[in-house]
Amino acid sequence: MTTITPEQATARTPAALAEAHQALLAEAARAVTSRAAFSGFAGREPSGPRGEDAAAQFAAILGRPLDLGDHVGTSTLQIDEVSPWTRLPLGVSYPRADAPLLVERALHARTSWRRLTVPERTGLCLEMIERLFAANPVLGLAAMHTTGQGRGMSLSGSGTNALDRGLEAIAAAWQVLGRVPTTATWEQSFGTELVALEKTYRIVPLGPALVVACASFPAWNVYPAVFANLMTGNPVIVKPHPSSVLQMALAVQILRETLVEFGCDADVVQLAVDSAIEPITSELATHPQMRIVDFTGSARYGAWIEEHARQARVYTETSGLNAVVLDSFDDTAGTLRAIAGAVSLFSAQMCTAPQNIYIPQSGVTTPEGNMSAAELEQGIVDAVEAILESPRRAAAVLGTIQAERTIDEISALTATLRSRARVLSEPRDWPAPGYPDARTSTPLIAGVCATDDDLFAQECFGPVVFLIRVPDARSALRHAVENASRHGAITAFLYSTNDDLVDAAEEGFAAAGASLTTNLTGAMPINFSAAFSDFHVSGLNPAGTATLTDDSFVTGRFRVVQSRRPLRSVRN
Amino acid sequence: MTTITPEQATARTPAALAEAHQALLAEAARAVTSRAAFSGFAGREPSGPRGEDAAAQFAAILGRPLDLGDHVGTSTLQIDEVSPWTRLPLGVSYPRADAPLLVERALHARTSWRRLTVPERTGLCLEMIERLFAANPVLGLAAMHTTGQGRGMSLSGSGTNALDRGLEAIAAAWQVLGRVPTTATWEQSFGTELVALEKTYRIVPLGPALVVACASFPAWNVYPAVFANLMTGNPVIVKPHPSSVLQMALAVQILRETLVEFGCDADVVQLAVDSAIEPITSELATHPQMRIVDFTGSARYGAWIEEHARQARVYTETSGLNAVVLDSFDDTAGTLRAIAGAVSLFSAQMCTAPQNIYIPQSGVTTPEGNMSAAELEQGIVDAVEAILESPRRAAAVLGTIQAERTIDEISALTATLRSRARVLSEPRDWPAPGYPDARTSTPLIAGVCATDDDLFAQECFGPVVFLIRVPDARSALRHAVENASRHGAITAFLYSTNDDLVDAAEEGFAAAGASLTTNLTGAMPINFSAAFSDFHVSGLNPAGTATLTDDSFVTGRFRVVQSRRPLRSVRN
Repeated sequence: MTTITPEQATARTPAALAEAHQALLAEAARAVTSRAAFSGFAGREPSGPRGEDAAAQFAAILGRPLDLGDHVGTSTLQIDEVSPWTRLPLGVSYPRADAPLLVERALHARTSWRRLTVPERTGLCLEMIERLFAANPVLGLAAMHTTGQGRGMSLSGSGTNALDRGLEAIAAAWQVLGRVPTTATWEQSFGTELVALEKTYRIVPLGPALVVACASFPAWNVYPAVFANLMTGNPVIVKPHPSSVLQMALAVQILRETLVEFGCDADVVQLAVDSAIEPITSELATHPQMRIVDFTGSARYGAWIEEHARQARVYTETSGLNAVVLDSFDDTAGTLRAIAGAVSLFSAQMCTAPQNIYIPQSGVTTPEGNMSAAELEQGIVDAVEAILESPRRAAAVLGTIQAERTIDEISALTATLRSRARVLSEPRDWPAPGYPDARTSTPLIAGVCATDDDLFAQECFGPVVFLIRVPDARSALRHAVENASRHGAITAFLYSTNDDLVDAAEEGFAAAGASLTTNLTGAMPINFSAAFSDFHVSGLNPAGTATLTDDSFVTGRFRVVQSRRPLRSVRN
Repeated sequence: MTTITPEQATARTPAALAEAHQALLAEAARAVTSRAAFSGFAGREPSGPRGEDAAAQFAAILGRPLDLGDHVGTSTLQIDEVSPWTRLPLGVSYPRADAPLLVERALHARTSWRRLTVPERTGLCLEMIERLFAANPVLGLAAMHTTGQGRGMSLSGSGTNALDRGLEAIAAAWQVLGRVPTTATWEQSFGTELVALEKTYRIVPLGPALVVACASFPAWNVYPAVFANLMTGNPVIVKPHPSSVLQMALAVQILRETLVEFGCDADVVQLAVDSAIEPITSELATHPQMRIVDFTGSARYGAWIEEHARQARVYTETSGLNAVVLDSFDDTAGTLRAIAGAVSLFSAQMCTAPQNIYIPQSGVTTPEGNMSAAELEQGIVDAVEAILESPRRAAAVLGTIQAERTIDEISALTATLRSRARVLSEPRDWPAPGYPDARTSTPLIAGVCATDDDLFAQECFGPVVFLIRVPDARSALRHAVENASRHGAITAFLYSTNDDLVDAAEEGFAAAGASLTTNLTGAMPINFSAAFSDFHVSGLNPAGTATLTDDSFVTGRFRVVQSRRPLRSVRN
C-alpha cells in the first residue's frame, strides 16, 4: 500500500507531484488494465484529523459561511441542508453566483489549465485525491449528515470507494492521453523528393464542464467526472443537489486550495449552489459555452438535460429497474440473506439496489427440496426483519432516508398497494441508536403479479421491493431483460444452479446492458461495485451513458489537433 | 511491405485469417501509436486485374444490374449516375429496399456477428480490406467515373490512401478493444471472509450502423466508418450519394462475398440506394433502431441529422472554411506553386482544400524583397495558370467537376462577384485530353475585402478561391481562427518566417480545432492528409465530429457489459 514518501512531502511543483505520486498511479493503471482487485485508499490511515478531532473540525464548519477563498459570488446562500440523522439544519452558507459569471471564470481558468502538460495535470490530480483522502473522516461526517448514510458507508462508499473511482478515472485518463504522441517525425517519398515533416499533436479540452451531483451519493459520481475532466484539461463547475451540498463543497475547497498552493487558478474548480426555489442547473447545463455535462439524478431530469444541453457532451447516470431472478439455490439461507442485504443497504437509495424480485409460481429448488413461492416470499421478508432485529446493525446497514419526500412517496405507494397488491411488509420507522429523530423506514415489500407492471416498471426511489409472481424462471429472465432494455437497469442478479439459465442470463443482460451478478452470497454486498474492476453503467439502456470507467468516459472530453511543418527537405 | 503468404492463401476460417494477416495488423498498429509514416498498400501491386483487364472488367459491370448476391430488394433502381469525364450514363442498377427492411436484416445479422471473437472479426476485416485492394484498379475506374477524379487520384486518394484510412481504423479498433480484458479474477477480504469472483467482460455493439457517403470522395470516409463499425460488432448499411454509387456498391459486393465465403451473414454489410426524388437517408438515419450514423456531406444536412437522429451516436464530416495565412516566404516560387496546387487539386472538391487566402495590405516579405499585395495576388493567379498550361497535367491535377450543380453555382457566384469584388480569374472550361465532353472548370479567383464576409464566410463548394485583403498577417490570423471556430475548418495553412507568428498560429488554430500546415512547399500537396499520422477533423468546430482516427472514433461504437460469479469462497 502506498505511503507518503519524503518526495511527496516536499514536492512543490506540479511536475514534482507527478514524480511523487507515480507509484500510486502505476498501481492504479495496472489495475485499470487487469481489472483485478485494487484500492488506493482502503486499509490506509488518512493523515488528517480522525475520531474526535474530525468531529470537532466538522462541528466548527457548521453554522457559518464556508471559506472557498476568492470564489466568485454575488451573495451568500444558506442552503436548506438538514441532517437526516438529527433533523437539525447544518447552517452552512455558500457563495452564490449566476451561471454566466461561473462560466466566465471557468473560461478564464481554462487558458492556463490546458497549457499544463499531462504529467503536470496528473500530478495535481493525484495530490488533490490524496488530500481528499487525508480529509476523509471530516468529509465522511459531511456525507453522513447530508446523504443520511451510516457512518461506515459514509467513510467507505462515499469515501475510500468513491476516491478509488476518482483514482480509476485519473489512471484511465492518463492511459488514454498517453496514447497520443506529442510529436512525430514523418518521411515519405513523393516522386523523387523525400518529404520530411515534424508533427505536433495537442490535447485540446472541449471547454467548461458541469458536474451535477445527486443528493444521496454525490461523491461516487462526482469524483470520477471531476478528475476525468481535470485530467483532460477542462475546468469544472460542481453543482451539488441543494439538500446535499456540504461534502462536495468541502471537496471543492480542498481542490481549490491545492490549485492555489501550486500556482494554478483556483477557478479551475468552482462550486455552483442553488435552492429548490431558484434553481440554476438548467441554465448552467444549457449555457452555450458549457461543453461537457455529467449528470447524476432522476431519469426525468436526465432526459431533459440530454434533450436540451445540445451544445454539450452529456454523460448521465439516472435510474433503473434492477432485478433479481430466482431459480434454484445451493445455499438457501445465504441467498435470502444476500437479497435482504441488497434491498436494505442504505435503504435502497443506491443506483445498484434491486427493486424487482421475480418469484416463480412453482417456487425454487433448494438443497432442502422445493421452496414454494409463498415460502420464498416469507423467507425474504424474514431475512429483512433479521437485519432490523438489532437497531445497531439496522443503523449501519439501512442508514436513514435522505429526503422527506421519499417517506411521503413510500407512504402513498403503500396506500395504493394495499388495494392492488399483497403488502407483505409495511414500511415503518425504526429507532436509530443515539439519533432519536433519525428519518428511517423499513422496506416496503409487496407481492404483485407480472401484469402489474404499471406499479413496478418504473423506479420507486428508496426502500421499495416488489416480489413479482411469474410462471417460471425463464419467463422471469425474459421479463427482467425486457424491462432493463426498455426502462433501464444498472445491475441484475440471478440465483440458479442451472448452467443453461446462467448462460442465457449472461447473454440476455449483456444485450440489455445490465451487469449481472450470479449466485453471490456471503460477506460482500451483492450490489457492491468495485472501482478498477467493475464497469458501472453500460450506456446500452436508459439508466445512463457514463461508464465508470471505460475509454469512452475519457475520450469524449478532449480532442487532438495537429500541426506540421517541414523538418528538412532532401532531394535525392 | 506485406505480401500474400501461403497461410493467407489457405486461411479458411475467420480465426485463421487473423493469423494470416497479423503482420500487416502489427505494422498498422505500430504506426497508429507512433504516427510515423506507413502505408499498407502504396507501392504494392494489387493482385486483381490491372490495366486493360481492369478496364474490361469495369466495362462489363456497366449497363446492367449489379449482382449483390441475395441482397434484400423489393425493386431494382437504376440510378442517375453519369460519368463527369464522358457525360455518359453508367447504367448500373441496384437492389432497392425500404429502410425498415434493411434495418430488420441488419438486426438479424447482428446476432451472429457480435458472437464472433475480436480476433475473428479482425481477421475478416483484414481479409476484406485486402480484397478491396486487390480490386483497386476496377474500384478506381468506378471512382473516376462517379466522382470525376483523375485516374491517379482515383487509384491513390480514393484507393490506397482511403484503404490506409480503413486499415488505420481496423488497427485503432483492435487496440481499443484489446484494452478490455475478457475475464478477470478478483479477490478481496470482507471482514474475515475472502471473496473471490470470476468476472467476464463482453463487448456489446450499439446496433445497426448507417454510413452516409458524399458524392465526390466516398471511399475516404466510408472505409474507416465501415471498418470501425464492423470491428466493434455493428452491422453496417452503406448509403452512397445517388449520383455516386458504383464504387461503394462494388466495395459492398466484395465485403458481402467475403462474409459469405467465411460462413457469415452477408447482411452484416448492406447497400441502401435511393434517388433524389425518393430519398431514404433521413428515414434510415432516424430509424429508432439505428444506433450509429457516420455522415459525410453538406453542413446543412449534417446539422439536420445531428438534430434529428437523436437515437444514434452521430459522427460527421461536413465542410469548413480552410484558410491560408500569408506573412513572409523563404521560397516565393515554391510557396505560390504549393498554394496553386492546393486550390487546383481535384478542383477543390476536397474537404481539405483551402478557400480563403489572406493577403496583407502591405504585401509579404520574400528573399527577393517585398512582394506587394497586388503582385502576390497576380502570383497566385499565374501559378494556377501554370498548372493549366498542360492539359495533361490539368487533367491529372484538377480532374473534373462531379456535379453540374457546382458549375451552375460557380457561374452564379461569378456574376455576383463581378459587381461586388475583383474577379481575378474567371472560371472557364478547359479541354481534358481524350475526354472531349468532360465537365471541367478552372478556379474562380476573386479579390475581396475582409468586410465581405457574407461572400467568403461560408463554404463555396468546388474551385472557388477568395483572396482577402487584410491589414496584416496578425489580423489575418485572428480572422481565420475566428472563422474556423465559428463556421468550421479542417485545415489551415501558414507561410511565415516569423517564429512568434508561427507559435501564435499553432496555438490559435489548435484552439479552433483546425490542423495547421506551416511553410510546406515541394512535391507533397499541402492538403494531403496521411493515414496513420495525420488526425483528420478535430470535433472542436462545426466542420465535423469524426476524427480519423482517434480513440473517440472507436469507443462510442460499443460498450462493455460485465458479469460476475463466485470463483470460490474461502473462509479464513
